Amino acid sequence: MILQDTIVALATPSGAGAIAVIRVSGKNAIKVAEEVFESVKGKKLTKQKTHTLHLGHIVDGDRVIDQVLTSLFKGPNSYTGEDTVEISCHGSTFIQQQIIQLLLRKGCKMAQAGEFTMRAFLNGKLDLSQAEAVADLIASDNEASHQIAMQQMRGGFSSEIAKLREELLNFASLIELELDFSEEDVEFADRTQFRELIQRIEFVLKRLIDSFAVGNVIKNGIPVAIVGEPNVGKSTLLNALLNEERAIVSEIAGTTRDTIEDELVIDGIGFRFIDTAGIRETKDVVESIGIQKTFEKIEAAQVVIYLIDGGKLNESTLEKIKVEVEKLKNQYPLKPLLVVCNKRDLLSEEQITSCQTYIPELLFMSAKEKEGVEGLKDSLLSFVNTGALRNNETIVTNTRHYDALLKALEEIEKVKWGLQTNISADLMAIDIRQALYYFGEITGQVSNDELLGNIFANFCIGK
Amino acid sequence: MILQDTIVALATPSGAGAIAVIRVSGKNAIKVAEEVFESVKGKKLTKQKTHTLHLGHIVDGDRVIDQVLTSLFKGPNSYTGEDTVEISCHGSTFIQQQIIQLLLRKGCKMAQAGEFTMRAFLNGKLDLSQAEAVADLIASDNEASHQIAMQQMRGGFSSEIAKLREELLNFASLIELELDFSEEDVEFADRTQFRELIQRIEFVLKRLIDSFAVGNVIKNGIPVAIVGEPNVGKSTLLNALLNEERAIVSEIAGTTRDTIEDELVIDGIGFRFIDTAGIRETKDVVESIGIQKTFEKIEAAQVVIYLIDGGKLNESTLEKIKVEVEKLKNQYPLKPLLVVCNKRDLLSEEQITSCQTYIPELLFMSAKEKEGVEGLKDSLLSFVNTGALRNNETIVTNTRHYDALLKALEEIEKVKWGLQTNISADLMAIDIRQALYYFGEITGQVSNDELLGNIFANFCIGK
Repeated sequence: MILQDTIVALATPSGAGAIAVIRVSGKNAIKVAEEVFESVKGKKLTKQKTHTLHLGHIVDGDRVIDQVLTSLFKGPNSYTGEDTVEISCHGSTFIQQQIIQLLLRKGCKMAQAGEFTMRAFLNGKLDLSQAEAVADLIASDNEASHQIAMQQMRGGFSSEIAKLREELLNFASLIELELDFSEEDVEFADRTQFRELIQRIEFVLKRLIDSFAVGNVIKNGIPVAIVGEPNVGKSTLLNALLNEERAIVSEIAGTTRDTIEDELVIDGIGFRFIDTAGIRETKDVVESIGIQKTFEKIEAAQVVIYLIDGGKLNESTLEKIKVEVEKLKNQYPLKPLLVVCNKRDLLSEEQITSCQTYIPELLFMSAKEKEGVEGLKDSLLSFVNTGALRNNETIVTNTRHYDALLKALEEIEKVKWGLQTNISADLMAIDIRQALYYFGEITGQVSNDELLGNIFANFCIGK
Repeated sequence: MILQDTIVALATPSGAGAIAVIRVSGKNAIKVAEEVFESVKGKKLTKQKTHTLHLGHIVDGDRVIDQVLTSLFKGPNSYTGEDTVEISCHGSTFIQQQIIQLLLRKGCKMAQAGEFTMRAFLNGKLDLSQAEAVADLIASDNEASHQIAMQQMRGGFSSEIAKLREELLNFASLIELELDFSEEDVEFADRTQFRELIQRIEFVLKRLIDSFAVGNVIKNGIPVAIVGEPNVGKSTLLNALLNEERAIVSEIAGTTRDTIEDELVIDGIGFRFIDTAGIRETKDVVESIGIQKTFEKIEAAQVVIYLIDGGKLNESTLEKIKVEVEKLKNQYPLKPLLVVCNKRDLLSEEQITSCQTYIPELLFMSAKEKEGVEGLKDSLLSFVNTGALRNNETIVTNTRHYDALLKALEEIEKVKWGLQTNISADLMAIDIRQALYYFGEITGQVSNDELLGNIFANFCIGK
């Protein structure tokens, strides 16, 4: 790991705002900042205390780039654990670029994605699962995902793992000690206590592994594909659910050519609604790409809403819809499907009864008049098991952790089987070491460059 | 002006980034921040020094919303001149909203657009033209607009106006003094010196007024409409100029249904290239809206590029193009028009000569092979007078200043005429007061709620 470099990146979102923050970290951070910063009070940054703020100008020779505020942090009392300077400048993209380019000319390197947080990990400010929680926290967009990420960042998850790992490590040492005295046939490790620990670990691992199913959907939002014939009011339904006019609503069939995603939070759970182009036959090149995408989106969705235009129903259309709904059910037998009839306001009670004879599970609503929208929301919510969340249990959301937990469980099962069959201590020791390895991967007590590279590549630049 | 409120707003761009900054300003800023902030070191914010940084958590009762850094500024040593706390949190939109909502529940008010800067003005931290320059600085996206805004923010423009105003005010007082002694027929104000001052003011005002033409285009970017038959390579040309694939390039005629704008900076000057839908006859509803927009965009553009497909040229198309180019010239006689033939690579030398007999001013290029792109850039640049910019002269970019300068000049001309015709001092005093009023409007020495409301409404929220 090269920690010699002083790195720089924009830490705030790109685009224009009132202010932007440029972060500089590394052993030369304060020295480099001093070269380009002129304090209005004539103060030298290198002579200032940590955790202080200074008003001045960023200058490139005679040219004044901006009036800025600099925040000074001296390592190890900073996010990265290194000397850090944060430059708060005016939020013009041009100014941001000018300042970053100036700092690069002064010898800073552009930070890689997640490099600030990786340095925080390497400098022992965070363990690995806490570092990963930082990315989750930034990506969190609802109460549930925020709560999980915050719990993980504060160490709730990794402290549980670290504690179990320590207990296991203790037994591993005792069993390895037995190997040194193998000819004497002694047992330093109490097998009853050890069996009890293995059972406890097994229980915790299984609980964490089970939590992944709910954790994963909460973290990413539940994708819901809205499909149906063109012009049945998909965009209008989406807008009713979202309470805003984000999709293009038009009277021309086939207007929605690109798939549009939008998110709605119901009871703290994020749903990603994916409006798709219609599935009618077409010869238009642009539109057939859209229909192709519709099927890809159904594939990726967790729930499908098949939307029907209540204003265009008769026996022949109902028959056709029944066939298509059956087709969808056969093609995706495990995918929850809601068949929703929009424009209820255009139907008589008799017509509604008649519809239900064809498709008994039909939900009726009027996106236009916002009738039945709440019922639809409740149906969607019923597909999510939020029990664990309400009970404030630890929930695993990270695929890497999930994989490591599965592998650790596999090794623990081997150890358990070894205990039952009284295998030799040297074989058991190998399995325990392997389990310890996977535990360590989660917290970062075991790591390598490739692993770190993969983890931090998913971060945004500037974090 | 209600300065009793403590105001809060997001200061960084909306959307996800590594961090976001929430700004709180007003007499209760530090007290409110202390209510929701728990320092990791157990420190009380109210007992900390100005210009210090503090690590801790934003908490709502038992619930931890985020780990944050707070920056503390005690008035008058802050941007607004009031007590100010900046909360640097993780860049999730959800977290930003949670913190802002918490602060609102604690009694803060949501800041109006530009309210922080308006408070800075009302508290005497900036004059009005400097405050306006802050918005320009944030919006600056090229060297030229940045340079102008920076100059204005550092007071270059308003100090010139303020100095002239002071000299004029001095004479106004002397002339008004004469009125008190009007029966004695004395002249306190030296008419020769006064005439000299009026001439100097007139010169400066005219120079500033003239600078507005160049300032305005530099500030906003020069709009260039690219028009032509469908599928002649407008998107490809735009991409060649922009060096990136931002517009949709497709083989299907009529793909570009919405007008797309993109900016290119040539020699520090921003050009906004506006790709438009074709101008062919159509019956497609969506597309005819696009063609309608094409004409609106030509109207708004400062330069028009008429693009021809070199691969589809023959005598009949050339004749048709010649007619259309003449039509555009007649319809917009004052608008610079560049007729550009794309796909030069498909034409022989003979064909090129033949084309030029029809349309002598034809520029040839190949967007695909990037031939002639530089020549086109030079032609575009020739429409901009950047002399003033290179000579580092003060340039007026603000319509409000321009209006005030025009009105001030009108009054100064009256004073000049009064001096020539020896009108009575009391009448002249009225004209001078009126000129002083308009000068004062620029710097904010004269202001009212409506004026301030109009100015700061154009700011972004959080500034």
